[in-house]
Amino acid sequence: MDKLRGLLPEIGADVLLVSPLPNIRYLCGFTGSAALLLVEASRSSLFTDSRYTLQAREEVSGARIHIAKHGLMGAVAEALRSHRKPVRVGYSPHGLTVAQKKLLDARSGTGIRWIPDRSIVEGLRAVKDADELERMRDAADLITRVFRDLVRMIRPKMSEIEVAAEIEYKIKRYGGSGPSFDTIVASGLRSAWPHARPTAKLLGKSQFIVLDHGAIIRGYCSDMTRTVCLGRATQKMRRIYAAVLEAQAAARNALRPGVRAEEVDGAARGVLKRFKLDGYFTHSTGHGLGLEVHEMPRLGKNERTIMREGMVVTIEPGVYISNLGGVRIEDEMVVTATGATTLTTAPREFLEL
Amino acid sequence: MDKLRGLLPEIGADVLLVSPLPNIRYLCGFTGSAALLLVEASRSSLFTDSRYTLQAREEVSGARIHIAKHGLMGAVAEALRSHRKPVRVGYSPHGLTVAQKKLLDARSGTGIRWIPDRSIVEGLRAVKDADELERMRDAADLITRVFRDLVRMIRPKMSEIEVAAEIEYKIKRYGGSGPSFDTIVASGLRSAWPHARPTAKLLGKSQFIVLDHGAIIRGYCSDMTRTVCLGRATQKMRRIYAAVLEAQAAARNALRPGVRAEEVDGAARGVLKRFKLDGYFTHSTGHGLGLEVHEMPRLGKNERTIMREGMVVTIEPGVYISNLGGVRIEDEMVVTATGATTLTTAPREFLEL
Repeated sequence: MDKLRGLLPEIGADVLLVSPLPNIRYLCGFTGSAALLLVEASRSSLFTDSRYTLQAREEVSGARIHIAKHGLMGAVAEALRSHRKPVRVGYSPHGLTVAQKKLLDARSGTGIRWIPDRSIVEGLRAVKDADELERMRDAADLITRVFRDLVRMIRPKMSEIEVAAEIEYKIKRYGGSGPSFDTIVASGLRSAWPHARPTAKLLGKSQFIVLDHGAIIRGYCSDMTRTVCLGRATQKMRRIYAAVLEAQAAARNALRPGVRAEEVDGAARGVLKRFKLDGYFTHSTGHGLGLEVHEMPRLGKNERTIMREGMVVTIEPGVYISNLGGVRIEDEMVVTATGATTLTTAPREFLEL
Repeated sequence: MDKLRGLLPEIGADVLLVSPLPNIRYLCGFTGSAALLLVEASRSSLFTDSRYTLQAREEVSGARIHIAKHGLMGAVAEALRSHRKPVRVGYSPHGLTVAQKKLLDARSGTGIRWIPDRSIVEGLRAVKDADELERMRDAADLITRVFRDLVRMIRPKMSEIEVAAEIEYKIKRYGGSGPSFDTIVASGLRSAWPHARPTAKLLGKSQFIVLDHGAIIRGYCSDMTRTVCLGRATQKMRRIYAAVLEAQAAARNALRPGVRAEEVDGAARGVLKRFKLDGYFTHSTGHGLGLEVHEMPRLGKNERTIMREGMVVTIEPGVYISNLGGVRIEDEMVVTATGATTLTTAPREFLEL
């Protein structure tokens, strides 16, 4: 919270209205599903509703708790109306809906200058501290363990949904609070859908099976993808896999402090271009993760963010060919003082099970 | 889509920009994680990104598919800019962020009148058709079955997290695509937190255990809560349970076509008042559900929505006492031509296991 206060003058604000929820959790520890946070120079106030009275008392540190009786936005507007004026209030244009902002405008009274912030809380969140890294290591270790189990368990005639059920069950049995996103199990032609939901389709032989899974531990996410094959793959499948693996290694090697996000993306894309597969790589190379499974920075084309020590990102190039299938290999890495370390440590070679 | 088109003149719009995602799925079937939909009198256009090219082709009906290369909002703005002018564009102030609306304003060109809609898609979604009801019955049956299993399985020394893991595993084994929200397993003093996350806490004897769980089948959600006790409960616990059960029955009996939402809420609240427990009932009596686990209508104080045949809502009064624990009993009901039918059919009597 103090680090954030130090940044308020930079955006020219006296007060910051913090949303959405992950930013609030990051700053004061509250994990409920409805909250707003006002951060001022000398104090902070958390607004939530009566479902969370007891939980807020137990979880929140560094902010006074206000239980709103008639809507959170109304309570925040009320607090702003009684604030000393004039006051400059920073807010996130990405974290408020048009309807919420309209209500604030209508009820906060005069003397307020609204200042769209430049994602300053998201910027703080992008660089993880030691406690956060410990949680993220645990979450990465857990999903690695789940994958190692899975390799011994999957077999033809299991459905994609059954495999996803096993993954999510193990996440919880091993102490995760749940999956960090809807587990992807995509086999055969469906593996060419980068974000396929698992279906009742049964796993077949000699097909790509994309397994994209992650866990949450103490609020922090992991995210790892492996692509495997039941039985022997064709030469063509092996060539595609080898190309993606080489692209992933190139991006992993490119990641270090001082490099621009687009350069890491370019490293993966360059390798696939050499294999004439870059046209099938239809998403960006990676993304930050932490309290959310997608957060800053994004590793894609034209992304100028400079990588800094403590950032955690995924490296996940993929190739998706509509009449054949898809391959994605994804690891999670933390930027260190001199380079980067991989947090997810499952084998990367092509497994023909 | 045609029903929606018929409503456009009512809000004075020529075109409707549909968001967020559940509204888009409802209208055209697309289940991806990034999309916008423009509905016009004679055609509709779905905007998504290149991750979803194949999936959109397979899923979408009634709309042309546009793969946006540089951001969905930019692509929508582009489509609006080249539209015949003037044009009145309806949009949901609840479904767009301030930042998204600003981008639209900046890039859509002149000649556009923006019309905040009155949640017309949400209004359509509130009344379910036969196909939707079939999915919701399946989802309700599934969670009832999971609870029946659970009753035979839980015992002291299991942790809340383990119980939640079993619930979510069974949801998938029984053919659900996943839980419809983060499963709540809250025991002992933690049962007084209406929205507690499961922890490593072990289940104890003679404590309330609140189990709030739901499943998704073919996109549609279920939601059911039962409160049980391992071993014998105290007289005080039994009295509280009986009061909540009576409140729930009163609300269930009050639900029928033509009644106002606040009357259903009032029926539950009135019973708890008679038991002098209304001060501990800190949330509303229920909510609609369907593609989302919380949707229109809300059954709370001052809610004037008239109940109509085909609406599906939860009835879930609760009592939460901070030094003792909490009880919630929740069922899902569909409003029929003459009354209402309960979709979740697990036993409601107090189970001392």
